[in-house]
Amino acid sequence: MTRPYNFSAGPAAIPEEVLQQAAAEMLDWQGSGMGVMEMSHRGKEFISIYEAAEADLRSLLAVPANFKILFMQGGGLAENAIVPLNLSQGGAVDFVVTGSWSQKSFKEAGKYASNRLAASGEASNFTSVPDAASWKLGSDAAYVHLCSNETIHGVEFQQLPDLKALGCNAPLVIDFSSHVASRPVDWSRVGLAFGGAQKNIGPAGLTIVIVREDLLGRALPVCPTAFDYKTVADNQSMFNTPPTWGIYMAGLTFQWLQRQTEGSLTGVAAMEARNIAKAELLYGYIDASQLYVNKVDKAYRSRMNVPFLLRDESRNDAFLAGAKARGLLQLKGHKSVGGMRASIYNAMPLAGVQALVDYMREFERTSA
Amino acid sequence: MTRPYNFSAGPAAIPEEVLQQAAAEMLDWQGSGMGVMEMSHRGKEFISIYEAAEADLRSLLAVPANFKILFMQGGGLAENAIVPLNLSQGGAVDFVVTGSWSQKSFKEAGKYASNRLAASGEASNFTSVPDAASWKLGSDAAYVHLCSNETIHGVEFQQLPDLKALGCNAPLVIDFSSHVASRPVDWSRVGLAFGGAQKNIGPAGLTIVIVREDLLGRALPVCPTAFDYKTVADNQSMFNTPPTWGIYMAGLTFQWLQRQTEGSLTGVAAMEARNIAKAELLYGYIDASQLYVNKVDKAYRSRMNVPFLLRDESRNDAFLAGAKARGLLQLKGHKSVGGMRASIYNAMPLAGVQALVDYMREFERTSA
Repeated sequence: MTRPYNFSAGPAAIPEEVLQQAAAEMLDWQGSGMGVMEMSHRGKEFISIYEAAEADLRSLLAVPANFKILFMQGGGLAENAIVPLNLSQGGAVDFVVTGSWSQKSFKEAGKYASNRLAASGEASNFTSVPDAASWKLGSDAAYVHLCSNETIHGVEFQQLPDLKALGCNAPLVIDFSSHVASRPVDWSRVGLAFGGAQKNIGPAGLTIVIVREDLLGRALPVCPTAFDYKTVADNQSMFNTPPTWGIYMAGLTFQWLQRQTEGSLTGVAAMEARNIAKAELLYGYIDASQLYVNKVDKAYRSRMNVPFLLRDESRNDAFLAGAKARGLLQLKGHKSVGGMRASIYNAMPLAGVQALVDYMREFERTSA
Repeated sequence: MTRPYNFSAGPAAIPEEVLQQAAAEMLDWQGSGMGVMEMSHRGKEFISIYEAAEADLRSLLAVPANFKILFMQGGGLAENAIVPLNLSQGGAVDFVVTGSWSQKSFKEAGKYASNRLAASGEASNFTSVPDAASWKLGSDAAYVHLCSNETIHGVEFQQLPDLKALGCNAPLVIDFSSHVASRPVDWSRVGLAFGGAQKNIGPAGLTIVIVREDLLGRALPVCPTAFDYKTVADNQSMFNTPPTWGIYMAGLTFQWLQRQTEGSLTGVAAMEARNIAKAELLYGYIDASQLYVNKVDKAYRSRMNVPFLLRDESRNDAFLAGAKARGLLQLKGHKSVGGMRASIYNAMPLAGVQALVDYMREFERTSA
């Protein structure tokens, strides 16, 4: 039987092969006599799982050697505090606000730093992003924060800004929760990237932080030791007991990513090609339809999260009911935006997007 | 085939029935078409999992209605900061230090509060606990902290102190990570209890906090919002995305606990009876042997974590190798104490302890 297609914004679909392997190894991981959840995090079995996950992620994302990869807890919302606790030194931080998530980050940072609004997409109702040349970046900023893919508003940076070219020497911090591993990252433009795992990487409860080494060791005295990046890095993410199951699932997902190919491409490059094809199929259909609309500036449309409205909102419930009956799950939009949202992360195959488009076309034709 | 007996101190053994159910539901939870890790935490499927877990834990531990149950992240070590961030109000906190874990709590709290040593078992090398009547409790303490079961030193409070009877009106905070759900809790003596899940409840990455309602709303301004107990409570543990898989696994474990019986006892009472029998078997054998020794004061011996030394330490490696060959796993002691440690949490059956005692007897007889 084919599984339904799950368009949840997160926690989100996980590749079936990954789930099958996790189920098969549940009671006995590779002859150890223990399931992964039952292992000491300091034993050789789990250390091997951890080291493989770290190395595979480093390889997949081409993370340079002068960046540390940390496996933490608390998700993006906790990082909204943990980042300024670690990097602000109580000074000023410049925020580029492009939707709900960067707005939350901006607000939380005010507890620890002078949070300044460098730019905001609010005037466009977060359907576009102010041009980087217009951002007000202070020379004294401890860092510049942006959310490189806004899960709710469906706004994505197609390339990261070159802060140096903008005359700013501060490190760039990106929240890449909802598009990590969907496309390459230009690390030459990044000081720190963080993301909850529950979109493209694994289960909720695991947070990925990738941080340039020279940014370690700046934590405020009130930073909890368990969330001090330097402490976490110095202890190979095992100062406190790490979320071992999440790391294991992430590791299986990384192995799955490595097996993916599109033509001559593999890994994240293959995923990017597939994600472009998926996004073009869905946006192309929406733009050509009479019933559906996506209002985001084409230059900033997210490949991962596609919010769309029905021009006739009275048909929303019928749309969702019909979708569910066809095995197209979790398409309801976020309450702050309304309408629908199709999250088409790495685990969503092109066939799933095609099934959605086929249903949308049928619904438009038959329900008019 | 019988699974090996896993004596890990944590992450620790999980009941086989729980693992089997988790494996069976991995790709499709109860006909939803989604695995639990793939569900939106705000969807009706996961909400039903969350609500059942919360209600079952409340019932199992007889948590009064004026306490909130929070599902958080970061484990006990993060709570060492999160508790004083929430409860100290920057004032004084009295610590009863009885081993490694309360020592860590004491140290971390110094970032946020005036941390005072009310009592310490260090003079006994943490093999005993100073009598409560001797504790130096200040009238101005924001709270009193103790670790009700020290995982490394194997020291357990057989009953919680009655602070009021000691003339102290401060709330008692207990770190019950490593014996939660192994015995009842006297909530009349407790203001807040916290614990990582990875001993008796489920996978690492889930933290349980049970807090009296009148203690909410006291957080310091620098407390990260995601770790402010009031915010967490007001949002049913979903201010940030909760560790959904951990909550699901905890819920399955709670259902397993409800099914356990010993004579006319069920649930935690049954577990307590079983845990007493397991501990008596193991300590009884150790005390009667010539080779093995446990140095902890009998009044404070842990039912969960039984550290023991071989009087001839040159035999340690042979002991561990023989144990592993017999399917008795993860018996090596913590590096700070040395020797061996048998963690015999709820998921360890009496037959597992019997198998360990049988092996210990055989090893003593044949290797002398």
